[in-house]
Amino acid sequence: MTETADLTATAALAAIRAGRLSAADLMEACLDRIAAREGTIRAFAWLDPAQARRAAAAAGQGPLAGIPIGVKDVIDTADLPSQYGSPAWAGHRPRGDAACVAAARGAGAVVIGKTVTTEFATRHPGPTANPANPRHTPGGSSSGSAAGVAAGFFPLAFGTQTAGSIIRPAAYCGAVGFKPSYGTLHRAGMKVMSESLDTIGVMARSVADCALAMAAMTGSDFGAPEAKAPRAPRLALVMGPSADQAAPETLALMDRVAEACRRAGATVTPLTLPEVFAAAYAAHPTVMNAESAEALGWELAQARALITPVLQERMDWGRAQGAAALAEGRAAFAAARAAFPDAIQGFDAVLTPAAPGEAPEGLGWTGDPAFNTLWTLLHGPCVTVPAGAGPRGLPLGVQVAGRIGDDAAVLAWGEWVRAALG
Amino acid sequence: MTETADLTATAALAAIRAGRLSAADLMEACLDRIAAREGTIRAFAWLDPAQARRAAAAAGQGPLAGIPIGVKDVIDTADLPSQYGSPAWAGHRPRGDAACVAAARGAGAVVIGKTVTTEFATRHPGPTANPANPRHTPGGSSSGSAAGVAAGFFPLAFGTQTAGSIIRPAAYCGAVGFKPSYGTLHRAGMKVMSESLDTIGVMARSVADCALAMAAMTGSDFGAPEAKAPRAPRLALVMGPSADQAAPETLALMDRVAEACRRAGATVTPLTLPEVFAAAYAAHPTVMNAESAEALGWELAQARALITPVLQERMDWGRAQGAAALAEGRAAFAAARAAFPDAIQGFDAVLTPAAPGEAPEGLGWTGDPAFNTLWTLLHGPCVTVPAGAGPRGLPLGVQVAGRIGDDAAVLAWGEWVRAALG
Repeated sequence: MTETADLTATAALAAIRAGRLSAADLMEACLDRIAAREGTIRAFAWLDPAQARRAAAAAGQGPLAGIPIGVKDVIDTADLPSQYGSPAWAGHRPRGDAACVAAARGAGAVVIGKTVTTEFATRHPGPTANPANPRHTPGGSSSGSAAGVAAGFFPLAFGTQTAGSIIRPAAYCGAVGFKPSYGTLHRAGMKVMSESLDTIGVMARSVADCALAMAAMTGSDFGAPEAKAPRAPRLALVMGPSADQAAPETLALMDRVAEACRRAGATVTPLTLPEVFAAAYAAHPTVMNAESAEALGWELAQARALITPVLQERMDWGRAQGAAALAEGRAAFAAARAAFPDAIQGFDAVLTPAAPGEAPEGLGWTGDPAFNTLWTLLHGPCVTVPAGAGPRGLPLGVQVAGRIGDDAAVLAWGEWVRAALG
Repeated sequence: MTETADLTATAALAAIRAGRLSAADLMEACLDRIAAREGTIRAFAWLDPAQARRAAAAAGQGPLAGIPIGVKDVIDTADLPSQYGSPAWAGHRPRGDAACVAAARGAGAVVIGKTVTTEFATRHPGPTANPANPRHTPGGSSSGSAAGVAAGFFPLAFGTQTAGSIIRPAAYCGAVGFKPSYGTLHRAGMKVMSESLDTIGVMARSVADCALAMAAMTGSDFGAPEAKAPRAPRLALVMGPSADQAAPETLALMDRVAEACRRAGATVTPLTLPEVFAAAYAAHPTVMNAESAEALGWELAQARALITPVLQERMDWGRAQGAAALAEGRAAFAAARAAFPDAIQGFDAVLTPAAPGEAPEGLGWTGDPAFNTLWTLLHGPCVTVPAGAGPRGLPLGVQVAGRIGDDAAVLAWGEWVRAALG
């Protein structure tokens, strides 16, 4: 039987509604697990158990009533520090909640704490370890959210993605990560870096939980991913412009996933994307770093010594690209976005790696977003679902991506693929 | 001879470079004018003359070195309060500068103070009066920025536009207002309301100053609007979906402007936009208010009593529209954006009213953005230039708008139209 701390949000809500569990008991189970493992995992940038208990006791009504949620520390909270993974913001206390936090609280969710982010959601890692093997990175930048969901610290968490910061850590930790269509969750109160790319999403222990949370916060219909599909999907198997980055375990995984999907009735057709997608992929670092350097204008001017050398170097590089290169990069993104519906015509969704391979060893590097940046810049939804383990026993994920607005379909086909894997 | 406080930024910079003026003297001239008129105009949400003097004395190098700039109070400043026009944020002191403020300071500009905004840049007005006649509104929501530029308080200011918050107040006050293409100035550190619409721009006393400031902050080329044009423009005269909102003085103005442009060699062709533009125009309130209600989630939940009843009502209305209506509205915007280049094919730019008429009497209402929302949602650049006075002696402006990315051309043709008016 699943321990309380490992319940999905959907299962916990059912237990609460049936009177078998209370929001307070659920929080207690999470805090017990945290007490047991946080010393190793270090998922939290800020946790005050007494405050979390008070919040659970005061949980409001709504579709997420009583569900603990971890909030990535680039997202503001009125009652907890928001430090953006940077000493330049040490001890920062925002006056208000970010829009997405207000939406979650409005739906009854209980903020349990702030989760570790890399420095401003860029490269320099925090202290978080992978619950499957603490000598390995959990991925980033939403490191604490992914690790905390996987470790039983909270069933639900916010992440943000500019390159691969939701999908990659979720895959590395064996969680489900969902990046909705760009703009679905309002970014007010988030420490936005790249306006063209930054997207808020969620992590959970099931695809259904992602749909539940998104629907609860937005009022939109994200479907019922666990409902029986009327037919099997037509999937485009896309390795994309970073195909040569795939580790052997990923090549084997994609073969295994494709075969399982075919056995379950899907068509899985290898698809090579036209050159316009490689051009957009190539422009991603320019747009991301040039926009991020604008966003960090104050920090770079007034608190430069508190920025890590690696981020200083990347921001200087971003600025040095120049306005024309930034405009060309944005145009390359727009061209790829415009071409995407035609490129996958006749397919329900794309099947593609979530990461190059297992989580790298060591906590100094959160891994490569090579299999994520294209899907981020295309602005469509993408979800990663757990797909077994790699040669070192670490979790693998597989990603399903789709057209802008096809969020419910991507979630449904993501769950279908997960089920097909057995 | 122009008084120092009324110099354009370009003229002031020339005087500083020639040794005829110092940044300190320029600031002193502005502070003298403020001392004389601020009691009536009330353009500032925050002004500390001693701090402004220190900032001028410490002005850095760069293309805006020593130029005082007013910062609309929905834009964060590290050293001055940022109160968003709302008692819910009274006394708020951000830790950092907004990205655009950091960019302005990086170019040498000197923040003179925070300028009055309506409540969260929505409807409820601040105390600011129109310098041309203090019994009339200066327009809004960038009320203090427009009034301050017109009154000689500062030569340059930041505004933001979600409906008509740059162009309308600039026109009402006799200033130049420029809304660049959406996304040109990074919104990090701005109190963003509508992610689909909010655009940061500038106000000044000349079109050339707008180009200067934008180029200084972004590194992009915004042209040289006062350079002799190689030919006269082909202008589409568009009254648009709000044509019936034009006051008699505006109908007369557009006739006069069209005639002056034709005399100067332009072609001016009345153009009726297809239905897709009216549909997008009609969807503007839904998208703006639904997104703004998400942005204000914390305020509405935790500080509702500090929100004016009119804003509470609008936010409740925005929420009540529902997720499907929001998605439809965004789709209507996208359809209009996609149709715009074809709709104005063969034209260099659009000539259109900046506002329904003169600034309304009284300070309780900042006027109607009927002639602005379409150009905001189309995401292209637009500029308003002074165009004489109306029947009550208040300033009128005329607006030039264009395609996304045609910022330099819109500024150039805006200046051409202004010059044609003589």
